[in-house]
Amino acid sequence: MDFVSIIMGSKSDYEIMQNCSNVLEQFNVKYELIISSAHRSPQRTKDYIKSAEEKGAKVFIAAAGMAAHLAGALAAGTTKPVIGVPMKGGAMDGMDAMLSTVQMPSGMPVATVALGKAGAVNAAYLAMQILAITDKELAVKLLEDRIIKEKAVVNDSKEVEVLI
Amino acid sequence: MDFVSIIMGSKSDYEIMQNCSNVLEQFNVKYELIISSAHRSPQRTKDYIKSAEEKGAKVFIAAAGMAAHLAGALAAGTTKPVIGVPMKGGAMDGMDAMLSTVQMPSGMPVATVALGKAGAVNAAYLAMQILAITDKELAVKLLEDRIIKEKAVVNDSKEVEVLI
Amino acid sequence: MDFVSIIMGSKSDYEIMQNCSNVLEQFNVKYELIISSAHRSPQRTKDYIKSAEEKGAKVFIAAAGMAAHLAGALAAGTTKPVIGVPMKGGAMDGMDAMLSTVQMPSGMPVATVALGKAGAVNAAYLAMQILAITDKELAVKLLEDRIIKEKAVVNDSKEVEVLI
Amino acid sequence: MDFVSIIMGSKSDYEIMQNCSNVLEQFNVKYELIISSAHRSPQRTKDYIKSAEEKGAKVFIAAAGMAAHLAGALAAGTTKPVIGVPMKGGAMDGMDAMLSTVQMPSGMPVATVALGKAGAVNAAYLAMQILAITDKELAVKLLEDRIIKEKAVVNDSKEVEVLI
Amino acid sequence: MDFVSIIMGSKSDYEIMQNCSNVLEQFNVKYELIISSAHRSPQRTKDYIKSAEEKGAKVFIAAAGMAAHLAGALAAGTTKPVIGVPMKGGAMDGMDAMLSTVQMPSGMPVATVALGKAGAVNAAYLAMQILAITDKELAVKLLEDRIIKEKAVVNDSKEVEVLI
Amino acid sequence: MDFVSIIMGSKSDYEIMQNCSNVLEQFNVKYELIISSAHRSPQRTKDYIKSAEEKGAKVFIAAAGMAAHLAGALAAGTTKPVIGVPMKGGAMDGMDAMLSTVQMPSGMPVATVALGKAGAVNAAYLAMQILAITDKELAVKLLEDRIIKEKAVVNDSKEVEVLI
Amino acid sequence: MDFVSIIMGSKSDYEIMQNCSNVLEQFNVKYELIISSAHRSPQRTKDYIKSAEEKGAKVFIAAAGMAAHLAGALAAGTTKPVIGVPMKGGAMDGMDAMLSTVQMPSGMPVATVALGKAGAVNAAYLAMQILAITDKELAVKLLEDRIIKEKAVVNDSKEVEVLI
Amino acid sequence: MDFVSIIMGSKSDYEIMQNCSNVLEQFNVKYELIISSAHRSPQRTKDYIKSAEEKGAKVFIAAAGMAAHLAGALAAGTTKPVIGVPMKGGAMDGMDAMLSTVQMPSGMPVATVALGKAGAVNAAYLAMQILAITDKELAVKLLEDRIIKEKAVVNDSKEVEVLI
Repeated sequence: MDFVSIIMGSKSDYEIMQNCSNVLEQFNVKYELIISSAHRSPQRTKDYIKSAEEKGAKVFIAAAGMAAHLAGALAAGTTKPVIGVPMKGGAMDGMDAMLSTVQMPSGMPVATVALGKAGAVNAAYLAMQILAITDKELAVKLLEDRIIKEKAVVNDSKEVEVLI
Repeated sequence: MDFVSIIMGSKSDYEIMQNCSNVLEQFNVKYELIISSAHRSPQRTKDYIKSAEEKGAKVFIAAAGMAAHLAGALAAGTTKPVIGVPMKGGAMDGMDAMLSTVQMPSGMPVATVALGKAGAVNAAYLAMQILAITDKELAVKLLEDRIIKEKAVVNDSKEVEVLI
Repeated sequence: MDFVSIIMGSKSDYEIMQNCSNVLEQFNVKYELIISSAHRSPQRTKDYIKSAEEKGAKVFIAAAGMAAHLAGALAAGTTKPVIGVPMKGGAMDGMDAMLSTVQMPSGMPVATVALGKAGAVNAAYLAMQILAITDKELAVKLLEDRIIKEKAVVNDSKEVEVLI
Repeated sequence: MDFVSIIMGSKSDYEIMQNCSNVLEQFNVKYELIISSAHRSPQRTKDYIKSAEEKGAKVFIAAAGMAAHLAGALAAGTTKPVIGVPMKGGAMDGMDAMLSTVQMPSGMPVATVALGKAGAVNAAYLAMQILAITDKELAVKLLEDRIIKEKAVVNDSKEVEVLI
Repeated sequence: MDFVSIIMGSKSDYEIMQNCSNVLEQFNVKYELIISSAHRSPQRTKDYIKSAEEKGAKVFIAAAGMAAHLAGALAAGTTKPVIGVPMKGGAMDGMDAMLSTVQMPSGMPVATVALGKAGAVNAAYLAMQILAITDKELAVKLLEDRIIKEKAVVNDSKEVEVLI
Repeated sequence: MDFVSIIMGSKSDYEIMQNCSNVLEQFNVKYELIISSAHRSPQRTKDYIKSAEEKGAKVFIAAAGMAAHLAGALAAGTTKPVIGVPMKGGAMDGMDAMLSTVQMPSGMPVATVALGKAGAVNAAYLAMQILAITDKELAVKLLEDRIIKEKAVVNDSKEVEVLI
Repeated sequence: MDFVSIIMGSKSDYEIMQNCSNVLEQFNVKYELIISSAHRSPQRTKDYIKSAEEKGAKVFIAAAGMAAHLAGALAAGTTKPVIGVPMKGGAMDGMDAMLSTVQMPSGMPVATVALGKAGAVNAAYLAMQILAITDKELAVKLLEDRIIKEKAVVNDSKEVEVLI
Repeated sequence: MDFVSIIMGSKSDYEIMQNCSNVLEQFNVKYELIISSAHRSPQRTKDYIKSAEEKGAKVFIAAAGMAAHLAGALAAGTTKPVIGVPMKGGAMDGMDAMLSTVQMPSGMPVATVALGKAGAVNAAYLAMQILAITDKELAVKLLEDRIIKEKAVVNDSKEVEVLI
């Protein structure tokens, strides 16, 4: 069974990452979600990657802040696509986590998205776009979602627009 | 026929992005490569996305610097995964392009990789990881590549290591 | 009928951009104001530019944050002057939006002003300065406004100044 | 006679700003170009603004680096549109000059463009877009320039493109 | 009569700059304090510098934020020492104002101190150190102040220190 | 008697640095804690270093913000290891203090940890790791602490995890 | 046998890190030096830490750039002190590596030193200061080194000094 | 005998600081120049400040890079005005040194000028402006220098200016 695996480095990332799992649920995409740290539980992280792959994880999403090594640790442990969500809160309020996440060595990319909540939501969308390459039903839903978003712009505008 | 589509915003990005196409060739992955600008040729960019999708493009890779809108324009025009490679050279030497690439609105993610050459190489790897979810032959090649990279570390070390 | 066209990328920009439309109203300058996104409603944005130009838009003002592609999309779609107002709130709290707005390719400038409210106000002034080149009544009002501002400095000073 | 006035804070800005005057010449737009410093020759700067306006300057372009006060000094001395070109070379290699240029007080905007050569070229384009509001011949030339730029993209692409 | 002249670019700087005038009062040093803007009231600023010098101003202190041209305008208008206090609040929260203040052209230095309140206090101390070169009474007070500050450290420590 | 010496530059650092002393107490490690400033009480600082070394200080921990010279002053005054904790609050909110702390001249290193509370805690751990090289009891406690931290991750995860 | 263990993430770090091993050799301190990557050879890295500790490694020095996870991976795998040397070359030319190195989770500090060569030298000094707590001969050498450095300052000054 | 005292933290600062002493020589202002480090020779630095003050030093100029503690050490050791020249070359290429120099505790200001050569020159001018408060001959020279600089602008302009 194909699914998305979400791993957070710390309990404090959970509130933000619910924005990720909520999007997956809304599109009826299966996912796992656990907390495991690159530093405090490296063996658990390594073991989980293997077991998740065996169970059918097709895409990994990793959320971490500060030194933000978790996405990189995942990328080193699997050849499945790994999406990294940098968390705010470090010395440069997330720019540090973003650079720690995105600057991976050759051959071990992390697909990095924006900081915090915006990134959490788009990590879900990116995971779904990847699955939708072979899941036509999901692909249709993603196209429908675009139309909904475009209509929302039109509706938002109507509330404030001034036309001559 | 499945393939990866590489689009650059300017001829000046070509030298860097050959590092991307070279990796795809090395793994025998089909690709297209064109130059089209989000600003100077917006209609051409839009038309190309559609035609590439119809021909079988499964993943897009966009390279741009400065205002770096190209990846975002692609992400707005397709629901296929879009990988963004920020180019160096702006006022913050690439950090500007990275943030312009990664901070997309909800529902239109750009999978951002590192700046310049490092990002160009990893964009190819990320595209292959996505294709490898359903292409077992490619998946095996990616696993073999990891072993080669690990051996290279051991060999590099032998040249300089000091052991007691 | 000559007017200024204000476009915002998101409803969340409206509160800030009212500082722009308020200045235009105060000087009796006609304007349109709509919400349209470079990414979520690209076709609507493109269509609006054309229709606004036909109706008499002489200057465009675009407000966007994060990846901040809206001003650039306008600049690519018209040869009328485009003023960009970068919004705060991204990873570098507006510096990202400013650089995404200002670093346009050759031939497609965006006249960039300061972040947020300060920029919203000055976007209106810049638009009026452009219109005032041929609108003498408006030119006089702008000169009068300078005298009012100078007097305000003198009055502010009187409340606190210490002279020997 | 309508013309564009270019002022540089230092002889060292001349090489960059020739990229600005060259564009104006190419489009047959009249311009003046002088060196005058906000700090080393403040009275000369002030006097020049007045005389240039009287002679017919419709748009000012100011280039300065480091503390980069020149564009602001112009904006304080005229209600004509002032375009600021921040020069590289300060402690933050131009980011400092950009922020010093763009963050003007309410009512005295500086239309800021990108750093250095890119900004110098686009300052000329922005000045021409402003003049073209009432100069139809120039407006046509600007539209033709867009078509030339679009064709250049197509031609650039042909040299390197790989299509399936 | 020797005195220190404090100029602020905006009423909003007054709360911070009271920390400056309070220190001068505490040491019984005469000062003037006015609001005058480099951009909104350039002539008033220029006139004030001349009249203050004639009345006996020996050191100028200028406080400004955002584009922060005020200290530079003073430095261009006098050969007396000018101390610049950068205000917080711009796009880089004061770093922009600091660089706009400190990066003056050759021959027109601004003695720059820290941002905001800390800088306001130390601007007063720096002005007093300059006056104290020839004012022995003030020089003694500054030495006494050092002893008071040292004792304060010892007392602060006593409240929390843990010794073995 | 071996102990850790904690020095803060200002009373305002005490709240943060209690996070450091608390960790040492929790592991039963002896420590001294005083306030002494590199600038306001340089002689006291110098004298304390000597006396602390004589009493048995094996590792120094220095906390300072802004110009953040304290750790460097310690490092210049002893050849014992000096750990620097940069405090938030300067123009770059701690990045300035971090760079002021870490960039020491050759031969006088400061072992720098993260900003603020996170750094205060890890300064204690680093001091204990240094003492544990020869203190086997402490070394065992540090290993036990790792197991506790790993278990905490597992427990945190249980509260939120979603498994298929 | 006590020794220092130096690990580099890439062969490209070797030139810089020879500045570290050279200092250790100059003071006759035993060391091992290998290349092993946190991402390309995670198992090798993990295995090496264990074996090095068993052979007598008392302090680890890790050098890495870009995402710079190596020091953190070491800190997670041992309770011995780990010194991190951030390498230049990433998007923020080393600031990214420094923040990735220093911002470790609670209980797993990395003693961070300056970027590149300066950091490589001081990593050696810091390691020696740690060993010198119980190695009196080394402690004496470190004190002698301080005297040599002070004399070098005096000699450097003599070459250029101007005294009245 | 009144003079200016220039202290550099390292021989490598000498080339830059000759730009400072050259200006003083050009204006016939007496100066001393030595190398002394805040960290490598703290006692020598402290002793020198005292002896220089006794010999007649009225203003101190301190040049340092990296952690850049030298100006602060001087400011803590004297109540004479201290001018700080931040050197380029650290992790943020001088921004670090600038912030380390300027952010002094209350009561111990450092009058900070721009980075490197520009700052070295203006440190000399600032020192002369301070001395010129009571040295009328020097005051006249500074006014003459302004006229020379203004004329230079006019001459520079003549080489390139384009007038209508």
